[in-house]
Amino acid sequence: MENKIIEAINEIKRGTAEIIDIEAIEKLVKRYFETGENFYVKAGFDPTAPDIHVGHTVLIQKLATFQKFGGIVQFLIGDFTAAIGDPTGKSETRKVLSKEQVLENAETYKEQVFKILDASKTQVVFNSKWLNDLGSGGIIALASNLTVARMLERDDFSKRYSSNTPIAVSEFLYPLLQGYDSIALNSDIEVGGTDQKFNLLMGRTLQKAYDCKKQQAVLMMPILEGLDGVQKMSKSLGNYIGVTDEPFDMFGKVLSISDELMWRYFELVSTKSLKEIEDMKIGVENGTLHPKKVKENLATELVDRFHGIGAGDLAKQEFEKVFAKKDIPTDLEEFIFENEVWICQALVDSNLVSSTSQARRDIKSNAVSVNQQKINDDNLNLTKGEYILQKGKKSFAKIIIK
Amino acid sequence: MENKIIEAINEIKRGTAEIIDIEAIEKLVKRYFETGENFYVKAGFDPTAPDIHVGHTVLIQKLATFQKFGGIVQFLIGDFTAAIGDPTGKSETRKVLSKEQVLENAETYKEQVFKILDASKTQVVFNSKWLNDLGSGGIIALASNLTVARMLERDDFSKRYSSNTPIAVSEFLYPLLQGYDSIALNSDIEVGGTDQKFNLLMGRTLQKAYDCKKQQAVLMMPILEGLDGVQKMSKSLGNYIGVTDEPFDMFGKVLSISDELMWRYFELVSTKSLKEIEDMKIGVENGTLHPKKVKENLATELVDRFHGIGAGDLAKQEFEKVFAKKDIPTDLEEFIFENEVWICQALVDSNLVSSTSQARRDIKSNAVSVNQQKINDDNLNLTKGEYILQKGKKSFAKIIIK
Repeated sequence: MENKIIEAINEIKRGTAEIIDIEAIEKLVKRYFETGENFYVKAGFDPTAPDIHVGHTVLIQKLATFQKFGGIVQFLIGDFTAAIGDPTGKSETRKVLSKEQVLENAETYKEQVFKILDASKTQVVFNSKWLNDLGSGGIIALASNLTVARMLERDDFSKRYSSNTPIAVSEFLYPLLQGYDSIALNSDIEVGGTDQKFNLLMGRTLQKAYDCKKQQAVLMMPILEGLDGVQKMSKSLGNYIGVTDEPFDMFGKVLSISDELMWRYFELVSTKSLKEIEDMKIGVENGTLHPKKVKENLATELVDRFHGIGAGDLAKQEFEKVFAKKDIPTDLEEFIFENEVWICQALVDSNLVSSTSQARRDIKSNAVSVNQQKINDDNLNLTKGEYILQKGKKSFAKIIIK
Repeated sequence: MENKIIEAINEIKRGTAEIIDIEAIEKLVKRYFETGENFYVKAGFDPTAPDIHVGHTVLIQKLATFQKFGGIVQFLIGDFTAAIGDPTGKSETRKVLSKEQVLENAETYKEQVFKILDASKTQVVFNSKWLNDLGSGGIIALASNLTVARMLERDDFSKRYSSNTPIAVSEFLYPLLQGYDSIALNSDIEVGGTDQKFNLLMGRTLQKAYDCKKQQAVLMMPILEGLDGVQKMSKSLGNYIGVTDEPFDMFGKVLSISDELMWRYFELVSTKSLKEIEDMKIGVENGTLHPKKVKENLATELVDRFHGIGAGDLAKQEFEKVFAKKDIPTDLEEFIFENEVWICQALVDSNLVSSTSQARRDIKSNAVSVNQQKINDDNLNLTKGEYILQKGKKSFAKIIIK
């Protein structure tokens, strides 16, 4: 294979957790380089939550990589199930969305993802289009393609079944619908998180069952850890960088991550080449490059991506100015914890407040910062890492959680 | 309660295997007697097999009973699933039927069942009407009403699951569709076989889940044994009386059943009142009535029902004439078998033929009779009972299977 194809494949493989049928992907890329013919890369998105964070962009970066090598992205908004909702009322996340809300959310998605994706190589599609047409009979025919036993092999189903946690029969249909999307879209590749493996393979299985000419390859990305470096990045855990975060906040959040996590973020969300990253690693190892400098590079790259070229440098300057002003003492008292700790408890134990209820009041009145970021969640748990706590203008403590 | 209501309820209860919510049925019948208001009794039929036998009429007789006491029968032809078929191709019984075939089969059904049912109190309905309208979303919403665990409680599913016999996900949907039919039809009562209990209760469950004003009562009929008195009456077992059987054959088949089975047929398929049946039983017990006479009454009743009043007597006369002519010796040699036996083996063992292959040829050339009935199935197994085998005009043997 030519060098540029090998390089393309290496870029595609970068950071992946698992690939099913890499040979098919290689063929598609090779064909593109030889004939210019495109191929189709599907990824599904939840229409109820259009606000994305950097954790989501791991997948979107991968889609952008495919676009560089011939991929047309099928940006699938799963509006069909959102229009049904959860009739049992048990799942709050599955709320019913109107057609208007879905379209509005789609616009929000576009605004955000087109900062990464090439809009001219992206098809935004809605699965209600073909899933409604499927009709009662089509759904039943679809459901005849898989057995109950096979469904119960799915990790979460199997756990729930054996622990007597109810699984609605409709939940068995959702993976089938996702698989059918691949038939309707005639996808060559589907990209998703490792937690989606069962559903991603369903497309492949069903394309075979329906005698499609292709069976999609599947590329799985790992789940990105949040700022704490332990749990997955998620809004509800508060350990996320939102793509709409203000430049200053975004910059500060990136600076707060550990050195180890920094390399992971480089691999998964930076567009720096593997070579450039390797060079930086060598620099840090032999002491010619300070890790903080590397982290600033990453922070600048991300702020530039979501706020435009130049925004990163501005954020950096502002951050340095404010940080200098804040006058954090260099000889902070350190408090060490063995396990994750509740923020209010940490404030008490590090002598910044007299009681957890006082801590709650201070947080609510915006008087508490963690690593220079004001917090307002008084249920926050701090996990493994180093943190500078600040109460008011002048009280500081450093805590280390092992 | 008035006497006529009590009598009606006793007729309704007659021969049933189980009733869920008899109170509801009592209320409906009472209301009919007091106000003349009708109620709706649903029963489902398979559109692929319109040729019915006396086993099926157990249920149809019960529907006819309801018609006497205010019931409007919802004769449901399940054409929806027949139009889908089994896309896996695994089930031969679930073959795809065209709209025309369904209508044609419906006409055949009508011809047959209106010999029992009052056409003016019967609505022939097709579930494709509302199940197609349900659409993809409706099916999924429907499927959210039941859990996988609950489905796997169904006897046959549970057995298949634990023995690793595949269950298609679509099979979980069929009971839900049957249940939804009761919502669409607003049924007050559903009548079915005991083997349908899970599906019959589904209507009740779903009517509740969908906030219907009523929840159908369920009345289950036992499965009628075939001529052998052991296995259920079924075409494939060859132990059936078809409602389109010629009068002579029908009459002979009824005469061939055991005395014990005769009372069961009276209970489940005769329209004789419980009092009349009781009187006959007493007659047989105290020796004033010969069981053969009672069996002839039953045979005459059934032939009359399916071939018109008078046809029973004609069949009886013809049968007696032919039987007398056949000149069966009174001192037949008896052969006793411990288990069910293959007809060809029985012919060899009773010295009527020299080999089983000869037996097959004789059966194929119409030279073999069992209990005066020519047979043509050379795979027939004879089960518990007494039989007179005949080869050609003059060779006879009596076999007894214990």
